[in-house]
Amino acid sequence: MNALEELIRRLASLPGIGKKSAGRIAYHLLSADRSVAESLAESIRTLNDRIRRCSLCGRYTEADPCDICSDGGRDRSTVCVVEQPQDVEVMEASGEYRGLYHVLGGVISPMDGIGPDKLGVAGLLKRVDHDEIEEVILATNPTVEGDTTALYLVKLLQERGVKCSRLALGLPVGGDLEYADRLTIARSLRGRTHY
Amino acid sequence: MNALEELIRRLASLPGIGKKSAGRIAYHLLSADRSVAESLAESIRTLNDRIRRCSLCGRYTEADPCDICSDGGRDRSTVCVVEQPQDVEVMEASGEYRGLYHVLGGVISPMDGIGPDKLGVAGLLKRVDHDEIEEVILATNPTVEGDTTALYLVKLLQERGVKCSRLALGLPVGGDLEYADRLTIARSLRGRTHY
Repeated sequence: MNALEELIRRLASLPGIGKKSAGRIAYHLLSADRSVAESLAESIRTLNDRIRRCSLCGRYTEADPCDICSDGGRDRSTVCVVEQPQDVEVMEASGEYRGLYHVLGGVISPMDGIGPDKLGVAGLLKRVDHDEIEEVILATNPTVEGDTTALYLVKLLQERGVKCSRLALGLPVGGDLEYADRLTIARSLRGRTHY
Repeated sequence: MNALEELIRRLASLPGIGKKSAGRIAYHLLSADRSVAESLAESIRTLNDRIRRCSLCGRYTEADPCDICSDGGRDRSTVCVVEQPQDVEVMEASGEYRGLYHVLGGVISPMDGIGPDKLGVAGLLKRVDHDEIEEVILATNPTVEGDTTALYLVKLLQERGVKCSRLALGLPVGGDLEYADRLTIARSLRGRTHY
């Protein structure tokens, strides 16, 4: 296998990249200025050295603690629990939340052998026990595993006298009733707001 | 900008990768074994050192001349002219062609200031003049620019007594009449084969 085929194979093993896209990218790197490939290679090579998990919230960061955990302007009484580090960026992009985060690193999934001990549950409870946390927003995904994990945490958190909440379910903004699945419609009805 | 944002920006500038895919890839590289990122970085970094253009046909290759040009088993009397190096791999994948190739590196496009002098035209004519080439298959894309470039080459090649041909136009195999555009239908009618 030559260098080009090798690169195409490696690119195609990345999420969301098929064999055709991988080929297109490889040929782009060959035809573009060689600094494009060099700087991309450098970015990828140094990524794991420069980025670590925040020791408080588990988010990916260069500085530890991360800029959210060390931001004095944020509301330290609220913690939003998410499954994956990238979920923090999604929540931040909404511009609606000013509290702290806690990354679980996954969800409880007995089928895959993932119990609470493999997730950041102990860390979350430690923060709740030691810091002045009043509310935990459970922002795991609205899936069976996400719901189960949220329920499991709610039990532990309520024992500690912490207020728990969960992200609302309903129609996506700008969505179309016609394209919504029936479970979402049902949840949007159940959670309807009154004028 | 931190290392993660920098990588996402670089990935998103590649063809076919949007900001969301770029994020997904970056997080994949962070969560996967670090050898994944290291070997990918190495593949990208060394690509331009290991891959060059074949001095005969212009295809990307590690060895010069490339394995097609140096393959004694191929029909050296036929040359297939394509626009881009990657088009050679597409033709090869069909398994139908056993001749040689010539990569133009683009098409004649006065609007973009690309004339025949910027394409591999001189190299093609030199090969026709010196080698025993009997037929040139013009496999530029079926676009206005591709057709123009093909016609331009046909004139030069016929002056040299070389037989010229062009890839057939028609319905794609497994295609559906309903989804074919009217120009393709028109060409498939004009080029219909009789029983």
